[in-house]
Amino acid sequence: MCIFCRIISGEIPCQKIYEDDKVLAFLDIKPASVGHTLVITKKHYADLGEISEEDLSPLIVVVKKIGELIKTKLGMAGYSVLNNNGTAAGQTVAHIHFHIIPRTNGDGLITWSQRSYDPGEEEEIVKKLTS
Amino acid sequence: MCIFCRIISGEIPCQKIYEDDKVLAFLDIKPASVGHTLVITKKHYADLGEISEEDLSPLIVVVKKIGELIKTKLGMAGYSVLNNNGTAAGQTVAHIHFHIIPRTNGDGLITWSQRSYDPGEEEEIVKKLTS
Repeated sequence: MCIFCRIISGEIPCQKIYEDDKVLAFLDIKPASVGHTLVITKKHYADLGEISEEDLSPLIVVVKKIGELIKTKLGMAGYSVLNNNGTAAGQTVAHIHFHIIPRTNGDGLITWSQRSYDPGEEEEIVKKLTS
Repeated sequence: MCIFCRIISGEIPCQKIYEDDKVLAFLDIKPASVGHTLVITKKHYADLGEISEEDLSPLIVVVKKIGELIKTKLGMAGYSVLNNNGTAAGQTVAHIHFHIIPRTNGDGLITWSQRSYDPGEEEEIVKKLTS
């Protein structure tokens, strides 16, 4: 059983923020910032590719609710929602989860360098994705 | 009118990946990695706090579909889904959007330092968020 399924079953404790019949939200034990929360489905799905649309909708609705709760109750300027799919993407637990990361001005928590496309490169990508 | 609404209206061109009556997906012009796609609602909502649940569900379903499309058609190892809310979170266009960022092993694109909680700190956060 994966570590998140063991948290759902109560075998491993968590700092619970929210729970309903389909979704559980709890504090990440190694947060990027104080209040960093994970939102997961109670049913085990490896990732976004695997989850049913029926279970995805309630999951993202809870992400929205908890994000706004964090903003209001913790007085945060904003928040980032992050969902990694695959170990290459930094997914360390193979049970779908959305990170909600509280953000403050200038925290520099999530940044990346931006590249640009060579001429014709975008068209090539679009062709691959739409054909 | 915001820049994404102008893209939706066709006033500003985009490299379109997908479109239906509620959602539009197109290449980010300054990508973190090749194939970096933005998924937006056609209706203008500033962020996740503002969007209706009715429009949020079809949006995340398209994110799932395009994410898997990117993985398959571009042969990527994985992908990250990122949604920033508020300028403090790095949101530069005030029209809700989900980034889909193609990932490869060791790209180091999205990382953050992890802190830990002091004794009692987690309980305090949970209390704030659940009371």
